[in-house]
Amino acid sequence: MQLDKLFKANSIAIIGASNNKEKLGWQILSNLKKSGYKGKIYPINLSTKTILKEKAYVSVLDVKGDIDLALIVIPAKFVEDELKKCVQKGIKNVIIVSAGFKESGKAGKEREERIIKIAKENNVNILGPNCLGIINNNYNLNLSFSALSVDKKKKKVKSKVAAISQSGAIGSAMLDWFDDKDLELDIFVSLGNQAVIKESQVLDYLASDKDIDLVVLYLEEISSGPDLMASLSKLTQKKPCLVIKSGRSQVSSKMALSHTGSLAGSWQSSKTILERGGAVLLDNLDELFNILSLWPTLLNKDYKKILKDTKPYFVSNAGGALVLALDSLSQYKLELGANPLDILGDAKADKYKQALNSFLNKKEAKFLICILTPQSSSEIEATARVVVSLNKKYKDKIVLPIFIGGTSLKGAREIFNVNNLPNYKSLEPLIFTLSKLSHYFSNKDKIRLYKNEKIINTNTRKKEFSEIKSKRLKDKNEVLDYIKSFKVLKDYNINIVKTKKLEDNINTIKSSEFPLVLKAVGPNFNHKSDKQAIITNIENKAQLNTDIANLKKQLKANDYLVYQPQIKDSLELILGFKREKNLGALIMIGWGGVNAEVIKDIAYSSDDLSFTEAKNIIKKLKIYQLLSGYRGKGVYDIDSLAKTLQNVAKLAKENPNIKELDINPLFVQKDKVKAGDVRIIT
Amino acid sequence: MQLDKLFKANSIAIIGASNNKEKLGWQILSNLKKSGYKGKIYPINLSTKTILKEKAYVSVLDVKGDIDLALIVIPAKFVEDELKKCVQKGIKNVIIVSAGFKESGKAGKEREERIIKIAKENNVNILGPNCLGIINNNYNLNLSFSALSVDKKKKKVKSKVAAISQSGAIGSAMLDWFDDKDLELDIFVSLGNQAVIKESQVLDYLASDKDIDLVVLYLEEISSGPDLMASLSKLTQKKPCLVIKSGRSQVSSKMALSHTGSLAGSWQSSKTILERGGAVLLDNLDELFNILSLWPTLLNKDYKKILKDTKPYFVSNAGGALVLALDSLSQYKLELGANPLDILGDAKADKYKQALNSFLNKKEAKFLICILTPQSSSEIEATARVVVSLNKKYKDKIVLPIFIGGTSLKGAREIFNVNNLPNYKSLEPLIFTLSKLSHYFSNKDKIRLYKNEKIINTNTRKKEFSEIKSKRLKDKNEVLDYIKSFKVLKDYNINIVKTKKLEDNINTIKSSEFPLVLKAVGPNFNHKSDKQAIITNIENKAQLNTDIANLKKQLKANDYLVYQPQIKDSLELILGFKREKNLGALIMIGWGGVNAEVIKDIAYSSDDLSFTEAKNIIKKLKIYQLLSGYRGKGVYDIDSLAKTLQNVAKLAKENPNIKELDINPLFVQKDKVKAGDVRIIT
Repeated sequence: MQLDKLFKANSIAIIGASNNKEKLGWQILSNLKKSGYKGKIYPINLSTKTILKEKAYVSVLDVKGDIDLALIVIPAKFVEDELKKCVQKGIKNVIIVSAGFKESGKAGKEREERIIKIAKENNVNILGPNCLGIINNNYNLNLSFSALSVDKKKKKVKSKVAAISQSGAIGSAMLDWFDDKDLELDIFVSLGNQAVIKESQVLDYLASDKDIDLVVLYLEEISSGPDLMASLSKLTQKKPCLVIKSGRSQVSSKMALSHTGSLAGSWQSSKTILERGGAVLLDNLDELFNILSLWPTLLNKDYKKILKDTKPYFVSNAGGALVLALDSLSQYKLELGANPLDILGDAKADKYKQALNSFLNKKEAKFLICILTPQSSSEIEATARVVVSLNKKYKDKIVLPIFIGGTSLKGAREIFNVNNLPNYKSLEPLIFTLSKLSHYFSNKDKIRLYKNEKIINTNTRKKEFSEIKSKRLKDKNEVLDYIKSFKVLKDYNINIVKTKKLEDNINTIKSSEFPLVLKAVGPNFNHKSDKQAIITNIENKAQLNTDIANLKKQLKANDYLVYQPQIKDSLELILGFKREKNLGALIMIGWGGVNAEVIKDIAYSSDDLSFTEAKNIIKKLKIYQLLSGYRGKGVYDIDSLAKTLQNVAKLAKENPNIKELDINPLFVQKDKVKAGDVRIIT
Repeated sequence: MQLDKLFKANSIAIIGASNNKEKLGWQILSNLKKSGYKGKIYPINLSTKTILKEKAYVSVLDVKGDIDLALIVIPAKFVEDELKKCVQKGIKNVIIVSAGFKESGKAGKEREERIIKIAKENNVNILGPNCLGIINNNYNLNLSFSALSVDKKKKKVKSKVAAISQSGAIGSAMLDWFDDKDLELDIFVSLGNQAVIKESQVLDYLASDKDIDLVVLYLEEISSGPDLMASLSKLTQKKPCLVIKSGRSQVSSKMALSHTGSLAGSWQSSKTILERGGAVLLDNLDELFNILSLWPTLLNKDYKKILKDTKPYFVSNAGGALVLALDSLSQYKLELGANPLDILGDAKADKYKQALNSFLNKKEAKFLICILTPQSSSEIEATARVVVSLNKKYKDKIVLPIFIGGTSLKGAREIFNVNNLPNYKSLEPLIFTLSKLSHYFSNKDKIRLYKNEKIINTNTRKKEFSEIKSKRLKDKNEVLDYIKSFKVLKDYNINIVKTKKLEDNINTIKSSEFPLVLKAVGPNFNHKSDKQAIITNIENKAQLNTDIANLKKQLKANDYLVYQPQIKDSLELILGFKREKNLGALIMIGWGGVNAEVIKDIAYSSDDLSFTEAKNIIKKLKIYQLLSGYRGKGVYDIDSLAKTLQNVAKLAKENPNIKELDINPLFVQKDKVKAGDVRIIT
């Protein structure tokens, strides 16, 4: 999907342009003209000849020249017809501002589906419906009903920021915030219902836009997890992407559903997708605005170097504030550059200058924080000017003020405003911002492109799945046969505990095979989570006979018994994945055994996993301490465990027909790893 | 300690008052006069006759009348002599502003110790040294070198807030912040080095001050944990106390040490002390200022009722913002009052009014949050006025605005400022504030006075400890004998596993006593944490003989063997306490067994513990799920466990000579609890 002509259209039709100032059609045309747009404009209106001095047309079909982009802002029920005319005219990019689609109930949903059909059949890009439009200030194009960015009287600083918002209201708030800071939000995209153009396609476009250095994304629903991981990872290899994904709690997911008609998906899946894509994940708008407050200052600096492995240096006239700063630093897992300089309560501007310079003289000191609380002998404005002048002196270093107080600081705050320095009033916002940005720029080179290939496994097992698939009842999950499930693991080189079907004559079992484990499996045992159908530590044939007799009583049609050797000297883990609608597979690994659910020691991953990444995921677990030889108890086979994790991820990727897979227990021994039990749901 | 005359002195001497405007002695006298102080003022200066129109004296001894309070602001080396003169004059309250004491090295520390000695011998209250002074605006008394609060031209709203700060710089920042908000910080106390007057004595005074409704405390070091718990719990039964205790991390504790010469103590102990005292514990100044921003609005309302079990109601023109609000709500563990009203992007002021009223008509709806993001048809200022007028209408309900954006909101912000409503720019600060205050007011009635009695246990065991105490090497911890340690537990009704010293003739052991556990104990085994000296599951005498032979090889002088029955069907916990300098005993209970340190499932408590509190502490543990009958596996004896926890707390309280006690394992069975092993360090 090529979105160039959406962001850089040379000719635009506005279907629903109007002379009525109350109407969005007037507002949008007015904004486009005010924004200094250089291309051709075609207002489309059934009854008006001229709108805002532009010749109006009854239909796009009446326009002689080519049209790169059409914006539709008319009642929902008329949209389909106008879209068809656009298709006829050969317009490949359409923005539908009109509401009354998926978000408004059944009729709207059907309307949206018809539009999607038209778009797909005719290869048309559609932004929206139910959106604010699009702004590209780098192309003098404001095709939205937000009037904020077109006020050319106000001199604004280019921010090199692009913001994408699924919610129009949140988008409006962002535009308003930028305007207040005298910053030009260079690109703004209101996604709306994402009928055709999804978040990932916009990210793809922004990845290649050289005028954009930072991307902000507000998302309620992920259209496609794999697509988003692929687009994000391509983008974040070049520039940071700050993402707020709402719907972290059950109650808020429900709210999102009623608000946009979209299912938010589980928060854990979303989080894993965004992290795999290299996004800077934020919890709320407060955090976003805190980071953006520092951005204009960064733009004037070699910020990529400054923010790599940043260790801040502190100078302060308040020892107490330094103690609090260090508390905050350790909360955000940042290290100190050097011992902070407590220059005491009577420090004047010169002392600040001297202390800051003592740090600036060190090559490695790049990020300085200058703390001041107003005290009787403080020279507040003079100190502010020291901070300003040191910032002007160094392009490869930054000195940031945190002046804490109120009344006495007004002069200093004015100095910072004029000189494009952020006005943090407490320690937290800056230290939070530093931690997020430094983490991104320090790990940027490790972001790996997510491979979004659709490889469907072609081996025999695939056939088995499809057989099951065809047999299974609608909306009902089917559990794959126990022995066959183990074969699926073997296909992916996952080591399994030798598992044999129990024959009627147990004399074939050698005495060397004891102790062993006996299990009842089959349709009647698929959903037993308490595993009463498993008997462990069977020492001899006599005992085995008794246990067989007991278990046989419980067997029903198609159930059968299997046996395995008893595994000793191992740690029990659980490993598996589940697939959520649109989000792809969420791989999970964790501490197993009886207390697993109480301990809740689980790490998550996506399905495209390198060996190193697999090892790093295992390192996140608490049980890693035991795996790596806790208290001299010997090291377990972590490499094989990582390999197994990687194989399960591969299995998940190549078998989209498997909904869920659980290996529980996964026995990790000193020299190998073996799956003890498996459950596959298709 | 009675501090009435410190806060409401009728006559004040300022030792070091000066005509030199550069000197603190001038600033302080000037502030006192400007603050409208009604009592008598005696400037003390060696060479000047009149200062700021007040007759000056060479010494306090030259003053005819009584002096309630003296403030000393002269170089440190002269302070001792002047203090002696104060004693001679019969002055019972002294503020030492001068620095150059504990915080400044060895000589200063000795100087401070001499001052403490004088104070104690003569029963003199001393605030400081190294402090800013004191302000009591309710008594027109500003005895500090902060000039902010004396500017009477500025009309300020009484805040009913008292702030206590150990750091002068942080105190200055607070004063500056209040001034900027046109709020009068009614009482301000700069604690300084706390040579004599500690934080708890100031809290005691504020508990009884009827003009103070909210107390703010910034603390770097806790002078005495038990005293603080006692004072805080008395205060917080009446009014909230917001506490920032710095030094949460190791690196910041070290910083606090270099900055004030005081040891911060472990964060876990401090946290437990503050929570037991009922404090609202805050992490940083940002959180403090967020809460204080709402305070003036609350003062005009029945805030105690509004904030009890608060469930907020939301109205918003932005569905996205509602989703984010609910995310934030669940993060702070708050429940929703009712489904939020999404009145859509085109909502005008009337629609807001109607929606807010639909909530306000419900009796139970007390806390409403009105969210707006600026959109094309928003009536921003009119909506702001709706919020203002609804607040005026109800004293028992509150409607708080969160208008998110920038430029477009300037008018609305002005309306909120004028009408004493807070100006939150994002959701987090308000929802955070609500969670903290609602938690306090909902649980206020459960705050129990901490009993700070010094009960020393007088039973036989005490004698044993003192014997050990007298024998032990200086600065070296001594481990109490194993069998005697069990006897200490028995003295406190703590059930123990029957533990017998192994005699040479093992024939006395009956076969019914098997299986049993054999342990080597004594000086050579006290510090063995890996417990290789413990052999479990000994089934018979033959096996026992072999194990005895093996262990005996390892015995050295004074070591011996003990045996216990093997305990089955139990959960293993750990229970104990450790005592930190000044902070008292920190009681700990947690998941035991081999993986305890990996799982890190520990809950903490202070030493004065009711049965209900003990049960609630146990409920915080993850292992509580297992204790309370996980997956139908039967319920363990939680009542006996709570009783045991209570008994250990009592033991800790009554035996200050015990530094550390560890019961590990503590076997919790279905019908009883038994200590399996114990280690007592004196």
